[in-house]
Amino acid sequence: MPSYTPPTRDMQFILHEVMKAAESGVPGYEEMDSDFTAAVLEEAGKVSSEVLAPLNAVGDAQGCRLENGVVRTPEGFDRAFAAMKEGGWTALDCDPDYGGQGLPYLLNSAVGEMFVSANMAFNMYQGLTHGAYSAIHTHGTAEQKATYLPKLVSCDWTGTMNLTEPHCGTDLGLMRTKAEPQDDGSYLITGQKIFISAGEHDLAENIIHLVLAKAPGGGEGTRGVSLFIVPKFLVKADGSLGDRNAVTCGKIEEKMGIHGNATCVMNYDGAKGWLLGDLHKGMRAMFTMMNEARLGVGLQGYAQAAVAYENALAYAKERLQGRAVTGAENPDGPADPLIVHPDIRRNLMDQKSFVEAARAFTFWGAHLIDRSHRMNDAEAEGLVSLLTPVIKGFLTDKGFEMAVAAQQVYGGHGYIEEWGMSQFARDARIAMIYEGANGIQALDLVGRKLAQDGGKHVMGFFELIKAFTRENAGKPGLEGFIEPLKSASKDLQAAAMYFMENGMKNPNHALAGSYDFMHLFGHVCLGLMWARMAKAAQEALDAGQGDADFYRTKIATGRYYMARHLPATAMHLARIQSGADPVMALAAAEF
Amino acid sequence: MPSYTPPTRDMQFILHEVMKAAESGVPGYEEMDSDFTAAVLEEAGKVSSEVLAPLNAVGDAQGCRLENGVVRTPEGFDRAFAAMKEGGWTALDCDPDYGGQGLPYLLNSAVGEMFVSANMAFNMYQGLTHGAYSAIHTHGTAEQKATYLPKLVSCDWTGTMNLTEPHCGTDLGLMRTKAEPQDDGSYLITGQKIFISAGEHDLAENIIHLVLAKAPGGGEGTRGVSLFIVPKFLVKADGSLGDRNAVTCGKIEEKMGIHGNATCVMNYDGAKGWLLGDLHKGMRAMFTMMNEARLGVGLQGYAQAAVAYENALAYAKERLQGRAVTGAENPDGPADPLIVHPDIRRNLMDQKSFVEAARAFTFWGAHLIDRSHRMNDAEAEGLVSLLTPVIKGFLTDKGFEMAVAAQQVYGGHGYIEEWGMSQFARDARIAMIYEGANGIQALDLVGRKLAQDGGKHVMGFFELIKAFTRENAGKPGLEGFIEPLKSASKDLQAAAMYFMENGMKNPNHALAGSYDFMHLFGHVCLGLMWARMAKAAQEALDAGQGDADFYRTKIATGRYYMARHLPATAMHLARIQSGADPVMALAAAEF
Repeated sequence: MPSYTPPTRDMQFILHEVMKAAESGVPGYEEMDSDFTAAVLEEAGKVSSEVLAPLNAVGDAQGCRLENGVVRTPEGFDRAFAAMKEGGWTALDCDPDYGGQGLPYLLNSAVGEMFVSANMAFNMYQGLTHGAYSAIHTHGTAEQKATYLPKLVSCDWTGTMNLTEPHCGTDLGLMRTKAEPQDDGSYLITGQKIFISAGEHDLAENIIHLVLAKAPGGGEGTRGVSLFIVPKFLVKADGSLGDRNAVTCGKIEEKMGIHGNATCVMNYDGAKGWLLGDLHKGMRAMFTMMNEARLGVGLQGYAQAAVAYENALAYAKERLQGRAVTGAENPDGPADPLIVHPDIRRNLMDQKSFVEAARAFTFWGAHLIDRSHRMNDAEAEGLVSLLTPVIKGFLTDKGFEMAVAAQQVYGGHGYIEEWGMSQFARDARIAMIYEGANGIQALDLVGRKLAQDGGKHVMGFFELIKAFTRENAGKPGLEGFIEPLKSASKDLQAAAMYFMENGMKNPNHALAGSYDFMHLFGHVCLGLMWARMAKAAQEALDAGQGDADFYRTKIATGRYYMARHLPATAMHLARIQSGADPVMALAAAEF
Repeated sequence: MPSYTPPTRDMQFILHEVMKAAESGVPGYEEMDSDFTAAVLEEAGKVSSEVLAPLNAVGDAQGCRLENGVVRTPEGFDRAFAAMKEGGWTALDCDPDYGGQGLPYLLNSAVGEMFVSANMAFNMYQGLTHGAYSAIHTHGTAEQKATYLPKLVSCDWTGTMNLTEPHCGTDLGLMRTKAEPQDDGSYLITGQKIFISAGEHDLAENIIHLVLAKAPGGGEGTRGVSLFIVPKFLVKADGSLGDRNAVTCGKIEEKMGIHGNATCVMNYDGAKGWLLGDLHKGMRAMFTMMNEARLGVGLQGYAQAAVAYENALAYAKERLQGRAVTGAENPDGPADPLIVHPDIRRNLMDQKSFVEAARAFTFWGAHLIDRSHRMNDAEAEGLVSLLTPVIKGFLTDKGFEMAVAAQQVYGGHGYIEEWGMSQFARDARIAMIYEGANGIQALDLVGRKLAQDGGKHVMGFFELIKAFTRENAGKPGLEGFIEPLKSASKDLQAAAMYFMENGMKNPNHALAGSYDFMHLFGHVCLGLMWARMAKAAQEALDAGQGDADFYRTKIATGRYYMARHLPATAMHLARIQSGADPVMALAAAEF
């Protein structure tokens, strides 16, 4: 069975030595000093490794079962869910007015990584609830907030998001679910929604469904769509539960992974619902939560890679197989451990250098969200809005790739379910698909975010890199960081320029390169993260503050990423500059 | 449920227009004219799509069950196996002296692709049998051949390969299974073998295990290893079945995929066995079959991508979602089909351009094996020996990647088992692991094959590319092929040069780049395949022989590969040239 060891030291390094969070001036961050975050992370780590991780394989093996309309979650999930609630983990960054602890989203993300690494399927029950909490918190009336938020914060009730229908996923304008207004101000919701994570289960007293549906008078396409609150049990005026609403789970899906989470077909047969936010503005309401939700999925991608890497590393150190080509390193044993072999090392360094930079990247994104929410920092909001599709798309693609790489270290054992490496890969796979498939992320990035506010945010991003490379050029210890970062950033600029010059003539010239652009952008971001981390590590070394091995390891890992992964930017640029013609050469019928 | 349509036209194009097989002078090829191969492929295609493909999902869902020592295969596998035997498909390229049809391995590979695309797990029962057939055919005594071959050719009996033990996979020198010589010339085999595909099942009367074990006096490591024939039921002098041998299946593994094939733990408790080949030369006996076996696994990689692509393409043409950015293409429908979107197109072209070139590459490898076996062509044998790790490693890595890409086209439905796309990815995953994990392929390529016979074979490969580019430079229709191929080949030469210059000082400089070299080599090979195919297609167009759309599509697909995939070679070269230092910077304890 795989193990899980929380990466507290690595997280502390990012929070305090790289980001210097407590001194960054964000309201609420001042209390986030090193001792405080260490205490929180330590506790979260304990829950993760002792309560959640042991249930990961159980959830995968047992899955969820639908019995007479009731979904049974895997053995032990109920006790673990109770422990999460009791520990206050579901309320960490929620509004204190509704029982939350009001901590920064940044800290919530760090804690979230641990929970997801330990048990991704389990953590989705509270993750979705948090999404519903955010939506009601942002768009709800005072009464709706009072009714639903305290219960969602405590996870006595859980939440869901209902967007997809059998015939439409990305293209929500095709939606058929209807909302008919009633005289009492409520609506009757009728239709079928699919892929509803945690749509039905036995972990909470009530489930609050947020449902997109078409109310009359909204016009064609997504313009006619509104968002509704549809509780499983209607809530009486005194807050107690009343009648069962006409919403049922028709089926749960057999999936490639995340078996511990029930993915439901939900049938709404005239279920009672209440408008959330403005009529016919449902898409906008959904979109306001998107940065956070997508960052959360990006986090899932690298969090699976993180735990897979931890186990692959342990296996590579233990498993004796073959001899180092440069001479036996374990001469008294029957063979050397796998880790002596250069190609195993290459694989492990790929994983390690990705995971650590992906974590820093995600934390940066969370920090920008905090700046935007807590300081109304428009620049931060613009930047995170630009980076969100990169965090989601690149980190989930690479996260899956690295989980597969970790599985490979195990040889044949990696393919056997008992060893747990297959589950990491299978679970990670979904993150590339849901919350906007990665092709949609690339489209969002190139088709929308690049040009947003006149291209201001991408210019800001380039400025930020320029400033960093200017300030740190030639600094001892940063050899191997500044030049590759500059060159990668130049490739990214050239790609953006190509889109500007050619996308006007034919938008396909931009869209055909969108996926490569997302990856190019991702490499530049991780390169920047490594340069920042190397700088912080070098400063710590210069200051002679101890733990020198830790800092030297950081720098060596970063240097690996720069040398071995940044060369990908030139390839992506070449692909982008080949334009739309090779991509669009065939008519559909010619395939 | 996914469909399977045999790619007969594409195969015929490679066999007759690109390779011009019938005129190539290989004994036995002269009867392989276009009509003959069309008839064989048509029949094989029928069996594949009508008998095997419908059982693919069944096998995945039901898996194999171990009941009181007996392994039950999924429903319908027995009838399908009987149909395969009846059709003579198991005997296609086997020796006519033992009931085989004596057809070229090339044709067997084409047929094999169909079987594997239709049902990979099922096809392994006969695939492994073919391996046992080859081993006994090459190394057996006349008596052994007479006893076992006719039954293996007909698949009345099936075969297995027993190498791995719990504590050793790649490093077979650590093997513990023992063979004790008996007075009657037989041996008693004792030990445990794991990951034995088709180790036990209900499809055949008898199972012939080929088992590596250590007989006394052979010395340490792999030198002491010999190969033994250990039948499940002992065979009496008259060929009928006698006593049950002391070999049992202790467990079948729960795996990520290929559920329809029983992966067994096999316990040998003093089982009676007979030496196959020379004493203490077991490794060599295994190695003689390796090119074929590894080519077969490379084929599995792209064959899964092929069937996954077929289905992704159909889905992309049917599923209506969104509008083309350049204007509606299905204005009367509620939305346009997915295939109008440039990034979907990019994804489909990635798959198509890989699969078609991978097929040509594998067929070329099979042709070289035929030359080596049927003409004692040492040059062909050297070349295929060089290319084998590339076929195995590159085609299975990319095959899996493309199966995952195909799954992505389905969005959320790709993650649901019912749609079948997950199975293609899960099944394809094993091909990267077994028959030598891909890291071992890279090691074999760089550590052994490159320098084999003084580097003669890799020089021959470069010559072959040089000759092609020289002969075809400037030919109308080949724009976009020759220059990228030249430049990619130059990158490959530079990488080989880097290894030569730096590997002497420190072999890690070569081994740390071995995986990138394997991929670099793979891209050059597929680039060469596309250049050859484009040339053949252009010649057909010039000759005005009809079916012009087919040929134009070929050229456009090839041009896509050259423009979008050959830029990867520069990236791999840059990684290789960064050397061993970034890879080996950390001590094991510092990870």
